[in-house]
Amino acid sequence: MALIVQKFGGTSVANIERIRNVATKVRKELDAGNQVAVVVSAMAGVTNQLVGHVSEVSPLVTQAAWSEYDQVVSSGEQVTSGLLALCLQQMGVGARSFCGWQIPLKTDSAHGKARIAEIDPAAIQAVLKKGMVAVVAGFQGVGDDGRITTLGRGGSDTSAVALAAALKADRCDIYTDVDGVYTTDPRIVSGARKLEKISYEEMLEMASLGAKVLQTRSVEMAMNHGVVVQVLTSFADTPGTLLVNEEEIVEQKRITGIAFSRDEARITLTEIANIPGMSAALFGPLADANVNVDMIVQNVTEDSKSTDITFTVPKGDLDSAMAAVDKAKTKLQYKSLHADKNVAKVSIVGVGMRSHSGIAQTMFQALAEKNINILVISTSEIKISVLISEEYTELAVRALHAAFEMEQA
Amino acid sequence: MALIVQKFGGTSVANIERIRNVATKVRKELDAGNQVAVVVSAMAGVTNQLVGHVSEVSPLVTQAAWSEYDQVVSSGEQVTSGLLALCLQQMGVGARSFCGWQIPLKTDSAHGKARIAEIDPAAIQAVLKKGMVAVVAGFQGVGDDGRITTLGRGGSDTSAVALAAALKADRCDIYTDVDGVYTTDPRIVSGARKLEKISYEEMLEMASLGAKVLQTRSVEMAMNHGVVVQVLTSFADTPGTLLVNEEEIVEQKRITGIAFSRDEARITLTEIANIPGMSAALFGPLADANVNVDMIVQNVTEDSKSTDITFTVPKGDLDSAMAAVDKAKTKLQYKSLHADKNVAKVSIVGVGMRSHSGIAQTMFQALAEKNINILVISTSEIKISVLISEEYTELAVRALHAAFEMEQA
Repeated sequence: MALIVQKFGGTSVANIERIRNVATKVRKELDAGNQVAVVVSAMAGVTNQLVGHVSEVSPLVTQAAWSEYDQVVSSGEQVTSGLLALCLQQMGVGARSFCGWQIPLKTDSAHGKARIAEIDPAAIQAVLKKGMVAVVAGFQGVGDDGRITTLGRGGSDTSAVALAAALKADRCDIYTDVDGVYTTDPRIVSGARKLEKISYEEMLEMASLGAKVLQTRSVEMAMNHGVVVQVLTSFADTPGTLLVNEEEIVEQKRITGIAFSRDEARITLTEIANIPGMSAALFGPLADANVNVDMIVQNVTEDSKSTDITFTVPKGDLDSAMAAVDKAKTKLQYKSLHADKNVAKVSIVGVGMRSHSGIAQTMFQALAEKNINILVISTSEIKISVLISEEYTELAVRALHAAFEMEQA
Repeated sequence: MALIVQKFGGTSVANIERIRNVATKVRKELDAGNQVAVVVSAMAGVTNQLVGHVSEVSPLVTQAAWSEYDQVVSSGEQVTSGLLALCLQQMGVGARSFCGWQIPLKTDSAHGKARIAEIDPAAIQAVLKKGMVAVVAGFQGVGDDGRITTLGRGGSDTSAVALAAALKADRCDIYTDVDGVYTTDPRIVSGARKLEKISYEEMLEMASLGAKVLQTRSVEMAMNHGVVVQVLTSFADTPGTLLVNEEEIVEQKRITGIAFSRDEARITLTEIANIPGMSAALFGPLADANVNVDMIVQNVTEDSKSTDITFTVPKGDLDSAMAAVDKAKTKLQYKSLHADKNVAKVSIVGVGMRSHSGIAQTMFQALAEKNINILVISTSEIKISVLISEEYTELAVRALHAAFEMEQA
C-alpha cells in the first residue's frame, strides 16, 4: 500500500463534470489499494474573478490589505475541496475536506505570498487511516496571527508537494493541462518529446526560465525533501514525467530541455564612467524599485575609461526600471539610455552539461547558421541562456531542438 | 460612545459599488463616535449559486455531506467580509475581517442548520478597542469538531443578533431591502404604515406567519437577550423599525400587523372513527415524514361516532404528507381524503389583543362583509389566523387593514 498525494489544477476542476472525473481518478488509486490525499485548486476562472473584485476596491499596498486579499481569494479552493469531497461521497468513497487552517498548514504571515512553515500531518493521517480520502484546499494556510494566508499564484503545487513531504508520501501526482514535461513547448516544435524523467535541478531551471508546468517553489521543495513528483494530465490515462534525483536518470542526454521566455526587456546604458561603485549606483535604485534584474553584461570600451552596461528585466517592470535609472542619471552620467521590448530569452538546460563538452559551441553554431544574433549570454552550471531578437524565438528553439537531436529518446 | 452591530444583507452588498455604499454607512457610525462591528451576508446570488453546485453533486442525505455543504456555502460571506474590510481600509478606516472560526463563533454540529452555542467576544473587542471595525462573515460558525457550520438560510440575522448579545451592544441595526417593518405588505395595501416600534413577540409571530423581514430565530434570540434591534434599509437615510420590549411601546394599538402566507395546503380526512389514539395514529406518521403540521381542526360528526380532521402543511410538504396519510389508511379507516393547495393563511398580530376585546369579532365581521369564507381558525394569545381560499388573500388583507384602522399611526 502506497500513500499518494494527488493535485488537480484549475482546468481539471473547471466544472462539476470535471470534478466528477477527478473523483474517478481518485477512486482508481484507492481501488489499487493506496491511501490518497488530494489537493485542489480553485475552479478555473474563479481566482481571477476574486482577484478582480479585490483589485477593484484596493491597490493592495499594505499588509492589512493583503490579509483581506487572502480572506477573499482563498475561498475558491475551499469551494472546490467541498465539492470534490461531496462527489467522492456520492461514489461511496468516504471523504472530508480541509481548509489550510483545519490541518493546520502553518505559514509565515507574508500575506499574498506566504511561505509554509510547518504542516501537522496528524489530522490528515487520521482520515487516511479510516480508509477515507482527505481533500485539501490548495494555495492556502494559516499565519501565526490565526489569519488565512495564501502562497502566491500557482501555490497549490507547493501545497501538494509540502503535504507529500509532511505525510512522507510515496509519490505526488500533479495533474495539469499538459500530460508531462516536454523537451520544449510542443506548440512550437512538433517533434518535442515527453520526458519520462527529469532531475529536480533541471526542472527548477526550466520552471524559472519560462516553462510554466510547475511553480518554481514547488520544485525547490520537492528537491529539498526528496519528494517523487509526477506531472501528468487528468484528461487522459497516460503516464507523465517523473521528477527525480539526478542519479536516478541512467543515461544522461547532453541537453534535457529548451525553455524560452518572451517576458523580457533589455536596457542599455552607454559610456558610464568605469570607476568603482558604478554598478551599485545603478542596481541599488533598481532593487529599491522592486525591479527584478535578470541577465547583466558589461563591456569596457576601448580606452577603458567608460563602459556600456546591458541588463534585462521582466517586460512589466520596464517602466519602473527606466524611471529608476533616469532618477540616478546625475550620478551615473551615462551618455545614452536605450530600452528594447522586442527581445526573448532562449535557454538550454541539462545536467549533461557537467560531463559533456562543446555544448555552448553547438548552441552558438546552431543559432549562427540561422543568422540569429546573440545579444546577451548568461550561464549556470546546467543551463545556457541567450537573449535574442523576439521575432527569432520559434526559429531559435526549433534550431536548437534539432541541433541537440532532442527528438530521439 | 455606543457599540453598534450593523448587519447588511445580500442586496446591500450585491456588487462592489454597493459594498462601498455600505462602507460609508459604517464610517458614519464611527464618525458619530461609536464602535462598530459589522456582519455581512454573501453578495446577492452567490449563495444560490453555491447551493446549486452542491445540489448538482449530492442529494445531501448524510451528516458528512452537510458538512461539505457548509464548507462550500460559507465561502460567500467570507468573500464579502474581506471586500468590505478592504473598502473601509481604502477610506482610511482600520478594519479586519473575521470568519466564524476566527472569532470563534461556536455552534453545535448540526451542519446546514447549526445553532449558536457560544461567542467569545475577546478577539472582536480587541479590534474595536483599537478604533477599528470588525467585519464578520455572517451565517457561519465552527462546530465542536473544528469544521465550518452554517446557521440555515437567513442565518446572518442570527449571527448579528448573537454577536450584539455577546458584545453587549447598544443596538443591532439590520440593513435589508425594506426600510422597516410595516403593518402589512405595502405591495398589497398601499396605505400600509411603517411601524416605529414593534415588540419582540409581535415580530416573532409576524416572522413565523410569513413576513420575511427577519429570520425567526434572530427575533427569538433578540427577545431572549434583550437586544435592541432596528430594521432599516441601506438604500436610504431613514430611521427604521425598532424591536423592543412590550413595555416600551407606550400606546398599544389593537392590532400591530397583518401577515399572510400562500405557502399553505389543506388536507381533510372524513369520518375517522372517534376513538382515543386516532390523532396519534395520524400525526405520528406525519412527524416521521418530517412534515410540519400547522393548523389543526377536528369536528365531531353528529352521531359522535366519527370525526373529520382538517390540518394544514407547507405546500412543499403536501406530497409527502399525502403519502404518509395514505400509508396509515388501514389504521385510520377514514372515508375520504382531500387535499387543497389553493388556500392561504391570513393572520392579525398584536399584543393589544390582551387588553382589547372584540378583536376576533371585528376580524370575522370584516371578512364576512367581503363574502370571504373562513376554512380554519387558529389563535394564540397575540394572534388570530384564518385559512381562506387563496384567491381572496389580497382582499382579506385590505379589508382587515381597513377594519382595524391601521393606516393611522
